[in-house]
Amino acid sequence: MSECWDSSIKDELQMVEEEIRRSIRSEQPILTEICEYVISSGGKRMRPGVTLLSYLANGGRETDDVVKIAAAFEMIHSATLIHDDINDRSEMRRGRPSAYKKFGLQQALVGGDFLFVKAFAIGGFFDEEIVGLVADACTAIAESEIVQFEKEGQIAPLDVYLRIIEGKTARPIMAGARIGAYLAKAGPDRIHAMGEYGLNIGMAFQIVDDILDIIGKQGSLGKPLMVDFHEGKATLPLIQAMEDPKVGPRLSKLFRKKRKTNADIEEASALIAMTDTVERARQRAKGYAERALAALEGVQDSGHKQGLIRLATMVVERDY
Amino acid sequence: MSECWDSSIKDELQMVEEEIRRSIRSEQPILTEICEYVISSGGKRMRPGVTLLSYLANGGRETDDVVKIAAAFEMIHSATLIHDDINDRSEMRRGRPSAYKKFGLQQALVGGDFLFVKAFAIGGFFDEEIVGLVADACTAIAESEIVQFEKEGQIAPLDVYLRIIEGKTARPIMAGARIGAYLAKAGPDRIHAMGEYGLNIGMAFQIVDDILDIIGKQGSLGKPLMVDFHEGKATLPLIQAMEDPKVGPRLSKLFRKKRKTNADIEEASALIAMTDTVERARQRAKGYAERALAALEGVQDSGHKQGLIRLATMVVERDY
Repeated sequence: MSECWDSSIKDELQMVEEEIRRSIRSEQPILTEICEYVISSGGKRMRPGVTLLSYLANGGRETDDVVKIAAAFEMIHSATLIHDDINDRSEMRRGRPSAYKKFGLQQALVGGDFLFVKAFAIGGFFDEEIVGLVADACTAIAESEIVQFEKEGQIAPLDVYLRIIEGKTARPIMAGARIGAYLAKAGPDRIHAMGEYGLNIGMAFQIVDDILDIIGKQGSLGKPLMVDFHEGKATLPLIQAMEDPKVGPRLSKLFRKKRKTNADIEEASALIAMTDTVERARQRAKGYAERALAALEGVQDSGHKQGLIRLATMVVERDY
Repeated sequence: MSECWDSSIKDELQMVEEEIRRSIRSEQPILTEICEYVISSGGKRMRPGVTLLSYLANGGRETDDVVKIAAAFEMIHSATLIHDDINDRSEMRRGRPSAYKKFGLQQALVGGDFLFVKAFAIGGFFDEEIVGLVADACTAIAESEIVQFEKEGQIAPLDVYLRIIEGKTARPIMAGARIGAYLAKAGPDRIHAMGEYGLNIGMAFQIVDDILDIIGKQGSLGKPLMVDFHEGKATLPLIQAMEDPKVGPRLSKLFRKKRKTNADIEEASALIAMTDTVERARQRAKGYAERALAALEGVQDSGHKQGLIRLATMVVERDY
């Protein structure tokens, strides 16, 4: 299967790009520039992609509305990335300076606000149900960020980690999948099932992201490795490794250090490599991907359904 | 006339408070706490007040919808205050530590995002026209902030100053006034006139705010005096004073200094006091207030219209 997960929606994804470009026009060129910079930085377009595929796989035909909502989800995602990088003082994002680094804190903060506003302006074309789903997803993002700040530097238990990634990654994708099915006039059961697909794909995606922070090829993610460890964010592979009877105690000690040296990071990498945590985390991601696939059972076969299936495979197997 | 401008809408303003309290509930108590902290810090509630009065003065009777929109405007206003204080590194706001100072940058940034989201979620109950007006107002705020950053430290010309205060203060109040009339099913001309009222009241209000930054009683604004001068923000009274043939050259030199000492600020205060800039700025604010009053001409007399009239007076005469 050489096709990409998004090969059946190339045209629609292009329309999403155009919708975004239209939405981010501003009297102040710098605002448009900040938005362009972040949006064109090579994101995978998974959020709009899932929304579009959910719509089309459920028999939707008129793409105008779903393109708008898909664009709004990508814009919200980009806005949160801009604000996240401010909060984490992240200097790199996708191989380039972060917006915060490139444009400065003030401009980046307002740029993120501007993107949020423009995304919600798109909401004006839709009913209460849809705006509610988008707003709930944004609320989940904000709430999970708060949990993440509070747990920084702590070896948080697994359920806290799962709650964080559900809020920041899985629930927004779930909302997009649900809205796609809703706009296609699918029934409540199908809308629910598509939500399950989105939720589980999102969990799998984020776990793999957290694995790649540890073992990705340096540079292929466009940022340094071991950022989560450095920042004291207890991701699944880190939590599991710190529970390892042999290396756990030493690794935990390094994790808790407020100022970690390069030598600390290198030692931590080596300790993690002595455990099977990456493999176990990938197995867990696979479990989510399988649940995502199971949720598609009732959906009639089509090129778009195949796209959703391929996405579930890609999400777990990707190494970038 | 001993009545306050908002005495005819006490009940409705109370309903706005309740709507805001409902909207900012969160699974994460800290988010609710940040929002409560900012919203309960003694703002004048001018934005919701103008929206409510515009609705009621134009014959609106069912207050449920207008209360929701009024709440959304206050929430957006509070969100921008939180983010502004981060951008300006302001430590005080209304006599208390700013949210940024009290809760830290990360929590305040996300708290502001959360408030934006909750305000826009309210938009889901309204049509495209209303969401568009709210979103345009938010866009104007973001764009004027960008202009403000770009001009920081420069003696910006008057038209730039007017554009900044129109975007950050007057256009949001204009949008609220327009929406109030729209919800009351006023005709296009009346909606336009109420917008003119809001726009002009907003201009007057901000000019007086900028005057009070110079001559307010220390502490009565809940923040130090001469903050704009210190931060290099060229407000109307500062621009005019720097054009004064006698004190202008010295004042401009002090204004352009990147690091200003207390002695610089004291000297600048004394120089400004030698000019008539405050009186001239107040005259200009009065001009806007008069235009606001003129826009009310066609509105039938009522307690609510009297409230709008009293607001126009209060805005110019206030000393806090």
